[in-house]
Amino acid sequence: MHTQRVFDTKDFRNALGMFATGVTIVTARAEDGTAVGVTANSFNSVSMQPPLVLWSLAKTSRNLSVFCGKQHWNVHILSNEQETLSNRFARSGEDKFAGLELDPGATDAPLIPHCSARFQCRTMFQYEGGDHIIFVGEVIDYNRTERPPLLYVTGGYALATPKSAAVSTEPQANLPASLFSEDMLGYLLGRAHYQFLAGIRPILQQRALSDADFFILSLLSVRAAMSAQDIATHMAYTGFNIDATCLELLCERELLCKEGGAATVYRLGAPGRDAILHLLAAAKSIEADLTGRIGEIEAVSLRNLLKRAILNSDPGLPKLWTADAQAVAPN
Amino acid sequence: MHTQRVFDTKDFRNALGMFATGVTIVTARAEDGTAVGVTANSFNSVSMQPPLVLWSLAKTSRNLSVFCGKQHWNVHILSNEQETLSNRFARSGEDKFAGLELDPGATDAPLIPHCSARFQCRTMFQYEGGDHIIFVGEVIDYNRTERPPLLYVTGGYALATPKSAAVSTEPQANLPASLFSEDMLGYLLGRAHYQFLAGIRPILQQRALSDADFFILSLLSVRAAMSAQDIATHMAYTGFNIDATCLELLCERELLCKEGGAATVYRLGAPGRDAILHLLAAAKSIEADLTGRIGEIEAVSLRNLLKRAILNSDPGLPKLWTADAQAVAPN
Repeated sequence: MHTQRVFDTKDFRNALGMFATGVTIVTARAEDGTAVGVTANSFNSVSMQPPLVLWSLAKTSRNLSVFCGKQHWNVHILSNEQETLSNRFARSGEDKFAGLELDPGATDAPLIPHCSARFQCRTMFQYEGGDHIIFVGEVIDYNRTERPPLLYVTGGYALATPKSAAVSTEPQANLPASLFSEDMLGYLLGRAHYQFLAGIRPILQQRALSDADFFILSLLSVRAAMSAQDIATHMAYTGFNIDATCLELLCERELLCKEGGAATVYRLGAPGRDAILHLLAAAKSIEADLTGRIGEIEAVSLRNLLKRAILNSDPGLPKLWTADAQAVAPN
Repeated sequence: MHTQRVFDTKDFRNALGMFATGVTIVTARAEDGTAVGVTANSFNSVSMQPPLVLWSLAKTSRNLSVFCGKQHWNVHILSNEQETLSNRFARSGEDKFAGLELDPGATDAPLIPHCSARFQCRTMFQYEGGDHIIFVGEVIDYNRTERPPLLYVTGGYALATPKSAAVSTEPQANLPASLFSEDMLGYLLGRAHYQFLAGIRPILQQRALSDADFFILSLLSVRAAMSAQDIATHMAYTGFNIDATCLELLCERELLCKEGGAATVYRLGAPGRDAILHLLAAAKSIEADLTGRIGEIEAVSLRNLLKRAILNSDPGLPKLWTADAQAVAPN
């Protein structure tokens, strides 16, 4: 026989954590009427005929006697908005049900609202499972909503994003692995950015504005007044070379106006304000359309990941979004 | 007592599908030495002391007798790159192990490589579970990798995106909600793209190449030969206006070379090949560095979400990555 490896508990947990799960709260009501509940990610479906599900509870749980004694319990698959509830039911020692308005259920077990799905069960089997008891329950009623579920993976909460097909699913024949590939982040960032920008380009063309002009107007819509040097510093990362000549041209067209003598600063002129309001409205409309197509959660995840990428590739840009930034008011 | 609701199987499955899971393949070896394996998402951890995990198998499975008879089986938590393997092991009637090079394991059970984590188990309990048998196994060995896991949720494959905090927590004081904001996808895409590009800009400058030149060289590294019209069509979405003059200038510098008479096509010249190989190497290095900073799972999610955004904002670009594309070979 094989010698049992001695496992480091933390390392073993980390390995188990590679198996992603949803997050559930399982509830029951004690004999004295007290509502009890625990967060569990050990839920799973077992059988269709009869409809059975299972979950397991630590033998050291203070709620063990309630679940072992009670026939009825409810499993709540938590939505992506119920992270706080998950944390609350994972701790002991507070009134977990405080402020929760329960739904009426088929049994006396507490039924929490706003979940992704819920299963009302009665115990069919209780099995020995080492330091846990495995509860197998028959589902007597259930419901499902459209709320995207909360996930738990590698020790943290997560959201699921559908695995999309590559932009092209055709094989990349003849492409040496060392070369340009469709999976390269630089390519994907560039293509996504330019395709987004393509949506507002008709407005740019109509107003005879270059990409660089657009970025300058955007910058000055956040920071009301800036020196030529400040503008150049903020824009350097785009690769556009913004010099005084370029700003003068925008002033001639009244898109910008100049103030001050020795310390000249630039502000949006009335036509500039008008242009940026139209451009930002177009950008918002493209964003809303794209969000509708890729999904709300996906858009939130994409924003979040782009922020992580930006933070981690920041060449040391001056802060644009500071509390003292003064925005131009819509006219 | 409560009347059992009659469940519609599909609807009940959809409700159960709101609980996200990883995807596993469980393998064993029959008495005659045949390797067997099934895809299962009914895996879960049970106990730490002793280390126990469980999964369940349909009583109708053709592999039931093998798993019921054998003490040893391996659970493989599939990575995001093993979707094809998941599909293969979910079907019956083909040699599921064809072409798989197995790793040596602690027992005779087949051990599949390149997974997120693996657990080598021996059966401790077999429990009745309706139309399934629940196998509870003691983990005798395990390993874990950094490969992000594959997910299954609401009936499809998915990736996990960590629910992390937003990057900037500073309030955007004075900014009217209707205006430019740090959360705008267009801004985030642009900034992430330009910051990525900023990393290779020193090489571009050193070789006196513009962003447009870089994109043309990249394009021709994937598509060996293209007409001026083809190049312009492929590049239109970037907003760069690529005309014959621009291509001629690159030819003069031997970055490109021309072929044919009436139907002129452009190819990379030797200096162009050299430039693109250096630029792509730099892009790969920046990507590896960024992946290290934001995390492997995050990078996979970001790529996936960018692909969704690209697919859903595609203005109808010609396909770049087709099977007939001929790549330039590294010299």
